[in-house]
Amino acid sequence: MSDGRQEFHDLKSPAEARDAIDSLDLSPADETVPLDEARGRVLAERIDAGLDVPGFDRASMDGYAVRAEDTFGADEADPAVLEQVGSVHAGAEPDVRVDPGTCAEISTGAVMPPGADAVVMVERTDETADGVAIRTSVAPGDNVMVAGADVAAGSRALGPGTLLTPREIGLLSALGVDEVPVRGTPTVGIVSTGDELVRPGETLRSEAGQIYDVNSYTIAAGVEEAGGEAVLYPHAGDDYDEMERLLVEAAEECDLVLSSGSTSASAVDVIYRVIESEGELLLHGVSVKPGKPMLVGHLEDSAYVGLPGYPVSALTIFRTFVAPAIRAAAGLPAPQTAAVEGRMAVQERYGEGRTRLMPVGLVETDEGTLVYPVDKGSGATTSLVEADGVVEVDADTAYLAEGESVTVQLFSPDVRAPTLLGVGEDDPALSRLLDHLERPRYLDVGSRQARRRLRDGVPDVAVVTGPSDRDVSAVDLGGWRREWGLVVPDGNPDAITGVADLVDRDLRVSNRSRDSGLRASLDAELDALASDRGVDRRDLTDAIDGYELTVKGFESPARKVLAGDADAGLGLRATAQALDCGFVPLGTESVRVLANPDRTEKTGVKQLESALDTHFDDIVASLAGVER
Amino acid sequence: MSDGRQEFHDLKSPAEARDAIDSLDLSPADETVPLDEARGRVLAERIDAGLDVPGFDRASMDGYAVRAEDTFGADEADPAVLEQVGSVHAGAEPDVRVDPGTCAEISTGAVMPPGADAVVMVERTDETADGVAIRTSVAPGDNVMVAGADVAAGSRALGPGTLLTPREIGLLSALGVDEVPVRGTPTVGIVSTGDELVRPGETLRSEAGQIYDVNSYTIAAGVEEAGGEAVLYPHAGDDYDEMERLLVEAAEECDLVLSSGSTSASAVDVIYRVIESEGELLLHGVSVKPGKPMLVGHLEDSAYVGLPGYPVSALTIFRTFVAPAIRAAAGLPAPQTAAVEGRMAVQERYGEGRTRLMPVGLVETDEGTLVYPVDKGSGATTSLVEADGVVEVDADTAYLAEGESVTVQLFSPDVRAPTLLGVGEDDPALSRLLDHLERPRYLDVGSRQARRRLRDGVPDVAVVTGPSDRDVSAVDLGGWRREWGLVVPDGNPDAITGVADLVDRDLRVSNRSRDSGLRASLDAELDALASDRGVDRRDLTDAIDGYELTVKGFESPARKVLAGDADAGLGLRATAQALDCGFVPLGTESVRVLANPDRTEKTGVKQLESALDTHFDDIVASLAGVER
Repeated sequence: MSDGRQEFHDLKSPAEARDAIDSLDLSPADETVPLDEARGRVLAERIDAGLDVPGFDRASMDGYAVRAEDTFGADEADPAVLEQVGSVHAGAEPDVRVDPGTCAEISTGAVMPPGADAVVMVERTDETADGVAIRTSVAPGDNVMVAGADVAAGSRALGPGTLLTPREIGLLSALGVDEVPVRGTPTVGIVSTGDELVRPGETLRSEAGQIYDVNSYTIAAGVEEAGGEAVLYPHAGDDYDEMERLLVEAAEECDLVLSSGSTSASAVDVIYRVIESEGELLLHGVSVKPGKPMLVGHLEDSAYVGLPGYPVSALTIFRTFVAPAIRAAAGLPAPQTAAVEGRMAVQERYGEGRTRLMPVGLVETDEGTLVYPVDKGSGATTSLVEADGVVEVDADTAYLAEGESVTVQLFSPDVRAPTLLGVGEDDPALSRLLDHLERPRYLDVGSRQARRRLRDGVPDVAVVTGPSDRDVSAVDLGGWRREWGLVVPDGNPDAITGVADLVDRDLRVSNRSRDSGLRASLDAELDALASDRGVDRRDLTDAIDGYELTVKGFESPARKVLAGDADAGLGLRATAQALDCGFVPLGTESVRVLANPDRTEKTGVKQLESALDTHFDDIVASLAGVER
Repeated sequence: MSDGRQEFHDLKSPAEARDAIDSLDLSPADETVPLDEARGRVLAERIDAGLDVPGFDRASMDGYAVRAEDTFGADEADPAVLEQVGSVHAGAEPDVRVDPGTCAEISTGAVMPPGADAVVMVERTDETADGVAIRTSVAPGDNVMVAGADVAAGSRALGPGTLLTPREIGLLSALGVDEVPVRGTPTVGIVSTGDELVRPGETLRSEAGQIYDVNSYTIAAGVEEAGGEAVLYPHAGDDYDEMERLLVEAAEECDLVLSSGSTSASAVDVIYRVIESEGELLLHGVSVKPGKPMLVGHLEDSAYVGLPGYPVSALTIFRTFVAPAIRAAAGLPAPQTAAVEGRMAVQERYGEGRTRLMPVGLVETDEGTLVYPVDKGSGATTSLVEADGVVEVDADTAYLAEGESVTVQLFSPDVRAPTLLGVGEDDPALSRLLDHLERPRYLDVGSRQARRRLRDGVPDVAVVTGPSDRDVSAVDLGGWRREWGLVVPDGNPDAITGVADLVDRDLRVSNRSRDSGLRASLDAELDALASDRGVDRRDLTDAIDGYELTVKGFESPARKVLAGDADAGLGLRATAQALDCGFVPLGTESVRVLANPDRTEKTGVKQLESALDTHFDDIVASLAGVER
């Protein structure tokens, strides 16, 4: 099967990959947009003022327009009295002339009437029977903004390359500019490849190995965040003619074409051949993990980059190599919030001889940001939200020491460290509790792992249940009890009454993994039964069909039961009720929320503590088998 | 005229203003958007996984699907040889069963065929005449991602309040979510007031005191930046019925109504009366400069805020009080880049007894950000782009010391300090030079002011011409010469030959201000003439009609000539040529670019120096009367 496969022997360095992408031209033509759509765009050319602002000598106070010399010597005690000959309002042409000895009432913003050269503010005047008493003297120009004093016609207003924020929109408005010449938006075509991909919203045939297309939408969102316009093309399988048609269509319509979506070697190979035939490959294979199979080239007049297939790899390579090129083509500055500094929370060994873009998560502490590696394998889509960005590790780095300073390139400028990092048991009550926190991250690693991680000092809280086999220094924030047992089909058709049935009868079970607290409770129950029967626990578990076939989520065994794949599943009464299943209770267990003693004052920990106080009664009321 | 005017005697504190706005409800209803429009939105509710990811036991390598026990003991020297019974590709349903002693070719991402429980990677296998030689042993589950291992059905995926960035879009895609429940976008109606306002693009009648509407577009852009949707309503004058109709219409259609645009006391008074009649005023007048006339209240079911009329004041009050409320209503987090820390570049006295939101500009230096006050009067729209944000100064602060640390609230999260702060002469060649810099700010304060400011150490460069009356320590980066003189109507109908004509004949002149270098050159010419004639310069200038009537920009006198308001204007040959005017040369003067000695290595200064080298010849070629 590997005959036609493209091998990546001649790997280029990341710097060469950047150079190759920089050599591509993906800048679109400039365009003109209406003023009210110009925010966030970049000015394509200098704008000089086409007119004076203000366009006339303008009163900057409410009061009286006067000839300044008529007021010389006037003061509170000895006002000058002038005849009022008319009024001028903002937005009206003066129909009055101010001759010596006269004045005109004037509003802020109104045109100075002929003859007048200053304004006396209304607070320094009085209307009297003899005329308007002016109780101060003014100099020519006082309280008047002369034409062009704000912006003079012909002067430079905004330079090319200016990012248009509200204030620049304001200046353009003042100049009467209603159409703005801006840099074009690069259009980026995304061609997903892989026969197995299905668009979200369509029906998924899991039994045929179909999966939802993750990369197209992730990368499209990344393109738009970088200032481009994403165009999604239909999925291409690994048929050469169809791939060629799609890629050429995308190249004709877009400034840049990205292929993305498949991990299939044969689809990548087909793309490779299309680019070689219809364009030019500048680079295939980069010495970077992940991203080795990256391609860079031309396709007709368009730029082309082939992204790796796994979602985290694709987003990492996009963010590292492609987003900066899109931003540059759009004329946009690099975002200010794209990177954060932190310290390694743990030591991380490396040394694979190529640059590594290591996915990491962030934890905020009083002493700054802690950075920990997230390595769930590149195939895991959950890494997308469990990591916050990547640390670039040089090819010749053997390891990163605990406490070492690193720069994290965030997956997006909008990514922010979570307010709480929790680890431990997954639990429906906990999930609802977390809804009341601002930006929590919770990793359901099970109780055993949670205790270990809490001891290592990385997470803020651990949520644990079941018996503890290690001593952890922690602050108990509170907790609840949950009823656990066997989830069975509605009505309990097999009339299961307890774990003995699983051992003794021909029943298929769906179990949880060893890390889970529920599993520890089940094992304790089996220990008791083994002790009763005077046998080893292993003798019992060997007799349980499915005991070693474990699944991940707290609902997963119940869903196996619902799907007919198991007769009983380890689970919670709350789950059985939520999924309309039967339930055979085996006991209750205590779930405790343990805080890292150094983080009890952290906002997210405080929010969790407060949610336990404030919202827990409502949560208990909404879930079966849960109590304080 | 002040009878009906609203007086703001009972001013509230800024904290009370914030409380009043917080008490308003401007949250729209949640809504559902397609996945490809969900980026940047905020999740309205928790999303639990509706399915397992992957949805099947999935090969995570290209290779052979096997029963692990068939490989036990196999190694390079002693492979297990298995019969290949078929192939499984990604996106296809397996049509083969792996029985003991057999294997199936399998692609990455394909469904594990029944019977198989592990994958041997292709690199550890060989096809032989006897079958597939397996050169390693694998354990059950090796190179297989079991169903739900990435995301288990029923588990918590994303919490309410999550900002959707590309990675969250990725996770939603993986879960097949194509419609996303998000927080609604608050709609904000903007009612501009003032008879004098004209929309950009429409014809401006300056003689009638019309001005372009700045606030509506500035605030609309600010609303959208804060995550709202802006709706512009037609301008309302100060007619009560029309104002009432517009405000009520806006209140019925929007979550928040902002009135904005006029500095006219009568228009503000009409608004006041409409709100009192159709809604409720919670607050009128805030003890803050600018922003005293701010209004907060309800209008029907909508929230209402009245902004001050001057653009910088309106943007300042919007940014300080209103944008955070819009962001909160949209569920968006406060932007990370909304504020910067800096030190005062100069001392600034205050002490007016109310909080001041002081507009400031930023200069980057090696020792951090310098902050200087920008006070051109609140009526100046140029303050919008000459200031970067505001410093909140407490009511009881008498002065800010030079070097004192301050926090600058930027006008927009996208505002960034300029790369160069230049001050001095305005000049067409300079304007073109600046086009080659990344993000320059240039204040045309004239040569005299420029030398003073350079001496005070605030700007990076000063661009000066004319004789210097003070000693400034500076690095000369280069410069050019420009021909100056009198711009006259095309063909020089008055046959003006020099300054003597301005003194001796009945000609009207348009002059530049005393700070301008051109004015200094003109005065030197007049000094020479005075000396020739044995009189005082003042004797000559008194005889020049318009000598004291100065205008701002380098093109302004020429434009006065073009408009027929002057017979001659002080200006440059380049300007005369650009505006198709005649020109009477009086001399050439040297323009020098002087750098702050502490800033010669600053990027913007380097860019300017390099632009002088690289682009100046092209600029000279495009302008008349300019030479190296």
